[in-house]
Amino acid sequence: MILPTLTAEAFSHLRVDADRLKSDFDELAQIGATPEGGVTRLALSPEDLRARAWYAERIEAAGLLVKDDDAGNLSAVLPSADLNAQTLLIGSHLDSVPNGGRFDGSVGVLSALECLRLLRERDVRLPVTLEAISFTDDEGCWRSLFGSRALAGMLSEDDIFDLQGDNAPFRAALSRAGIDPRAVYRAERAHNRLAGYVELHIEQGERLERTGVNIGVVTDIVGRTTYEIVFFGQAGHSGTTDMYHRRDALRGAAQFIVRAHEQVRARYGDGVFNCGDIEVKPGKFNVIPSEARLIVECRHAREKLMAEMEMLIVQIARESAASNGLTVESKPVAHMPVAPMSSQVIRAVEQACSLLGLSTMPLISYSGHDAQIISRIAPSAMIFIPSVRGISHRPEEYTHWSDVVNGANVLLQTVLKLALSDRID
Amino acid sequence: MILPTLTAEAFSHLRVDADRLKSDFDELAQIGATPEGGVTRLALSPEDLRARAWYAERIEAAGLLVKDDDAGNLSAVLPSADLNAQTLLIGSHLDSVPNGGRFDGSVGVLSALECLRLLRERDVRLPVTLEAISFTDDEGCWRSLFGSRALAGMLSEDDIFDLQGDNAPFRAALSRAGIDPRAVYRAERAHNRLAGYVELHIEQGERLERTGVNIGVVTDIVGRTTYEIVFFGQAGHSGTTDMYHRRDALRGAAQFIVRAHEQVRARYGDGVFNCGDIEVKPGKFNVIPSEARLIVECRHAREKLMAEMEMLIVQIARESAASNGLTVESKPVAHMPVAPMSSQVIRAVEQACSLLGLSTMPLISYSGHDAQIISRIAPSAMIFIPSVRGISHRPEEYTHWSDVVNGANVLLQTVLKLALSDRID
Repeated sequence: MILPTLTAEAFSHLRVDADRLKSDFDELAQIGATPEGGVTRLALSPEDLRARAWYAERIEAAGLLVKDDDAGNLSAVLPSADLNAQTLLIGSHLDSVPNGGRFDGSVGVLSALECLRLLRERDVRLPVTLEAISFTDDEGCWRSLFGSRALAGMLSEDDIFDLQGDNAPFRAALSRAGIDPRAVYRAERAHNRLAGYVELHIEQGERLERTGVNIGVVTDIVGRTTYEIVFFGQAGHSGTTDMYHRRDALRGAAQFIVRAHEQVRARYGDGVFNCGDIEVKPGKFNVIPSEARLIVECRHAREKLMAEMEMLIVQIARESAASNGLTVESKPVAHMPVAPMSSQVIRAVEQACSLLGLSTMPLISYSGHDAQIISRIAPSAMIFIPSVRGISHRPEEYTHWSDVVNGANVLLQTVLKLALSDRID
Repeated sequence: MILPTLTAEAFSHLRVDADRLKSDFDELAQIGATPEGGVTRLALSPEDLRARAWYAERIEAAGLLVKDDDAGNLSAVLPSADLNAQTLLIGSHLDSVPNGGRFDGSVGVLSALECLRLLRERDVRLPVTLEAISFTDDEGCWRSLFGSRALAGMLSEDDIFDLQGDNAPFRAALSRAGIDPRAVYRAERAHNRLAGYVELHIEQGERLERTGVNIGVVTDIVGRTTYEIVFFGQAGHSGTTDMYHRRDALRGAAQFIVRAHEQVRARYGDGVFNCGDIEVKPGKFNVIPSEARLIVECRHAREKLMAEMEMLIVQIARESAASNGLTVESKPVAHMPVAPMSSQVIRAVEQACSLLGLSTMPLISYSGHDAQIISRIAPSAMIFIPSVRGISHRPEEYTHWSDVVNGANVLLQTVLKLALSDRID
């Protein structure tokens, strides 16, 4: 079949239907709505399943095809007339954190649906199949980025059948949602069938708001390593133990936290360090702490600097231990590599913004997204829109509606650029 | 009745029966013995009740009177021939911390029993009644220093009937031990009936061992204030929140811990600071801590410097909060004033040591003891004997038997000095 020679310019006048998108957004926000104005749609929960059923209805109402895969990823499909066409994925996720915001994830899925709906209405035939996907459990209620990892063929047996961590409740939740835990691996897509992936998302930070820029074009999604660091000292009576012979695990841990924050700030301007929890043993007011267990996290957008940062953290832990007569053990418990976005897809996003008269700035994403998984198997990019005061994962999360519409139009025009350009490398 | 004019010199040859004391010690160490070589005799537990029953048997076997009061304090009594005589208390406690040592408390009670037993055997009639007392719950399994506080008339209704803290389990434990919670106040003694109190105890520190001195003569028991300090910040996504706009409660708390240790050390050589626990909210690796709740403790032997130290601590907390954009709340949750020992009783202890050819050094007690309570109503002193490596509250707690015998003989000769000197002021 020979397709007519089309160019994106022929469709540069197309815009999403902002009212229809708003109506979808408001309906979805009712599902799992919390008294504080947020939503709770934990992956595979009754609320999440209701959101998925609602999404499937909206897809059918739009005359699009409903597709759900073996990992519970749920999509609207607008097939290409070319039966050999690759698929261009766009979307995000419908699940939320507990009492999270209404915009996180939803904006990306609903805008993707609106793009397909509009293109079908206008009878735009493209040389790629379009798929507006909602990934399962992006937020990690069970397994972070579960759906995208399944699609990328990156799930291990352990993710579902690990006997050490008890995965039985997770398997039960999958089964209740109609997903066969043994068949999840079948969600993997042949990489050469994917043309790319574009995800529209709220920034969850304040860089766009503070600079007054409309659109953030994500260049990299930061890598992340989570460490468990344990300081071991010697318990003792807080009153009678000689002050000069104490081996106070909490004192060493506190020194580590202070120094790590200072030195990461001083040496790695773009790096992130967080110590989110500490557990002290025996934890009594009149006993010198014998153990302090910390969970710390490093993020950086450059793999090499990330590795340097990690070495620095471990080094500071050793020094803080030594200067307090302690021993220390540190081990990485999770690692996600840096995910660079595709320069070709980035260019398409920038061209779309330019066409729409929207200002842009390159941004590093400091949070994880399904795009960081899909980028390993297909050229990917992310479009960020401003978050008011950078608030996210809370009911107060907010994005001005005009920014959502901007983002949806950028997504639409990016899709057209990509679909009608040469094949993405 | 006119008593013969006796002097302590007449009995300066008396020594405790070291073998009999050792035999008692070994029997008692069996009660609540732990596999690690320590003991677990939590106050009012079955093990504690067995230890008390055993002690009552030993008292009766020695031909002494058994006395138990309404707070469960259990004593051996050697009455004076003078029916109007005051009572000289000596003793300590039979209860222990979980898997504690065999010497803490036991040495004081058993040596006191041995003193009375020996004096009865030798038919020494004194112008004071002697009482070898074991105080209830010195270690604070339920209420720290419960028995001595009851005896001193310092228990409030809240200690037993406070409705906020649930005291029902404590009342039930008292009842199971045959103690009527409503009658505890009746354990109060008329202050003018007490001639004094002397407590023999292991040092629980290394000062005697390191200097090679036989006996520590306690001059003061430190005052102690326990504070709860809470730092409040702002939770946020650990990746996306701007590094320069974080209000990290744990970072502020860590800074506080480091500075408080440093400055207390620099300014108050004899002061003690301990931060024994910290609780972080929400306590997730990828969320900036919004709250850090600390329990800290200050000890000092001078009331004025203690108050200064507390002010310093609160000041450092405020500074650490301010420099991290946090707010902080600090409140004292417990306070025990400094307890100076009686110079007259101290002199009797020193004379006893001199008589026995034992070297002495004045010591501050950095741990709490029943003597700090009784000192408020009667002239008191404490005799410390060396603890190997200063270890206490652990199964490895150890004191050479020769040191125990030294301590028991010092106690015996101190009792004779006090009983046969003029009335203690």
